[in-house]
Amino acid sequence: MNLSRVGEFGLIERISRAAPKGRGVRVGIGDDAAWLNSNGENLLLTTDLLIEGVHFDLSWTSFYALGYKTLAVSLSDIAAMGGRPAYLTLSLAIPVDFRVEDVEEFYRGILKLASRSGVSLVGGDTSRADRLYISAALIGRCPWAPVTRGGARAGDDIYVTGTLGDSALGLDCLRKGGRKRRTKAAEYLIARHRLPTARLKAGALLARKRLARAMIDVSDGLAQDLKHICEASGVGAVIWEQSLPLSSAYRSLAGRRGTRYAVTGGEDYELLFCARPSDRNRLEKLKGRLGVPITRIGQCVGGGERVKVLDRFGKPVSYPAAGHDHFRTS
Amino acid sequence: MNLSRVGEFGLIERISRAAPKGRGVRVGIGDDAAWLNSNGENLLLTTDLLIEGVHFDLSWTSFYALGYKTLAVSLSDIAAMGGRPAYLTLSLAIPVDFRVEDVEEFYRGILKLASRSGVSLVGGDTSRADRLYISAALIGRCPWAPVTRGGARAGDDIYVTGTLGDSALGLDCLRKGGRKRRTKAAEYLIARHRLPTARLKAGALLARKRLARAMIDVSDGLAQDLKHICEASGVGAVIWEQSLPLSSAYRSLAGRRGTRYAVTGGEDYELLFCARPSDRNRLEKLKGRLGVPITRIGQCVGGGERVKVLDRFGKPVSYPAAGHDHFRTS
Repeated sequence: MNLSRVGEFGLIERISRAAPKGRGVRVGIGDDAAWLNSNGENLLLTTDLLIEGVHFDLSWTSFYALGYKTLAVSLSDIAAMGGRPAYLTLSLAIPVDFRVEDVEEFYRGILKLASRSGVSLVGGDTSRADRLYISAALIGRCPWAPVTRGGARAGDDIYVTGTLGDSALGLDCLRKGGRKRRTKAAEYLIARHRLPTARLKAGALLARKRLARAMIDVSDGLAQDLKHICEASGVGAVIWEQSLPLSSAYRSLAGRRGTRYAVTGGEDYELLFCARPSDRNRLEKLKGRLGVPITRIGQCVGGGERVKVLDRFGKPVSYPAAGHDHFRTS
Repeated sequence: MNLSRVGEFGLIERISRAAPKGRGVRVGIGDDAAWLNSNGENLLLTTDLLIEGVHFDLSWTSFYALGYKTLAVSLSDIAAMGGRPAYLTLSLAIPVDFRVEDVEEFYRGILKLASRSGVSLVGGDTSRADRLYISAALIGRCPWAPVTRGGARAGDDIYVTGTLGDSALGLDCLRKGGRKRRTKAAEYLIARHRLPTARLKAGALLARKRLARAMIDVSDGLAQDLKHICEASGVGAVIWEQSLPLSSAYRSLAGRRGTRYAVTGGEDYELLFCARPSDRNRLEKLKGRLGVPITRIGQCVGGGERVKVLDRFGKPVSYPAAGHDHFRTS
């Protein structure tokens, strides 16, 4: 049977069924990061793979931005568990005709964000290849209980940090923009796509204060990432379309796309989390300290692990494509 | 400047100069694994990259053996620090037309060796790609002081576990053998190439007993890996050609290659270590407990960080190619 028939998530499920959960493993395959208990300390471990032609296009990014984003993507996984990032290894496969200066520029992007976020680059591996492959492994610590995807309950509020859809719309601007002069709105969206911000402060505070019961970062798109929470928690979810936080740049350029990218676009690296309705006041008081606004966008419900988006009349909205599966070819 | 001019080790040196060594990092870039101090515990972190067409050829390996070897390579890095492996993440980029059964067979190879060596598979990432690309990150623990490459001193004895050159000669047998019936010797060498054994028991015991002062695994070939020890320790090394441990299969099939593959062939995953001459008796007593024979093959010397191989008349032997650099094209 071809991989394309099983799909990425089907493959991950098969692997995780076959892999026994070992000693010291609190959470293994299937969350933003593995949660390991080592000598009484909570360690987090996450890995990310970025491949030229699949995850990025060198004609739309600088090497500096690519390095920066590589780390940001992994930081976001640690943020989504409520942890603090610590140690990074980076394996690179590089075409031999690349310029050393470009590779160094890539590392400058990595090291800039690393120093800002308290991360040490401690190793890696290098090889030649016919295109650029980047594989990052990041260890984090968590002095409090990490937040998994599985703690949401029916009745919980659903929140998201920042704004949604900017990155996908920014990529559209890059793809369609050509060389003509860009508006400020387009520049804003493109920067959100190129240099995303991992919500480390918000993630750690929401975990430390035990306010987030389930959390994930929005990497594949709100609908798909919320579905991961629903499946892990055994709940359904309703999202109110008119509550989705959209940037003014998004509003000015989305046009006929409407809220589509906010629901199905990936790579925003905002945090999506569920909290008890009884914690609304505590969350309200914390707002100024999260480093990013948060918006209540929906509610967890019983009766099946589905994600529904309702328009302002309460009617379900459907979107053409939901999320991303690397192996599905349809 | 092209990467091919700087070379793999030149690139690694540039990166490691630019990366500050952070808090809790005892050993960063440039050893078999990073050595991190976390809550008073020694953590080891290593990553390995295996790429189709660069590190392996799917016509010469089964998916099971490929999975097994992927983990063995990382285990060997932990062994070379004297640690115990614990947690593995695995990122795979796979062509979409691969069969699910083959990918599962790959994981069976991984999980077989994982269960034997006390390792839990805790996560990873997957993507499509135009060829198979494997990236492993392995966390190990070390309840005693890890052994780096930098502790050798002039006068130290040089030892190696097992036998050398088998893997490179096994690969030759695979490449040149075609479909004709293979001798038992060829089968032995091919198995050593396909299913290498990480010397975990020996590595941990040599570290725990403080017998190995410097250690590395033989992945790029004895000459090159010994050079890494020399550079990190600031010593030179003399190897006695007639002391090199060769398997009977190697002796029967090496022919005109002589000791070449034992000195320059890669992927044996034996341990190469340096010890005080005053510890010879202690090592002798430990021999039965290492799980693999060890052989004294040379001595560390002063006067420049060079590796010399001497024949039985004391004359230097030169070999055509020493080790492997992924970016050098010459």
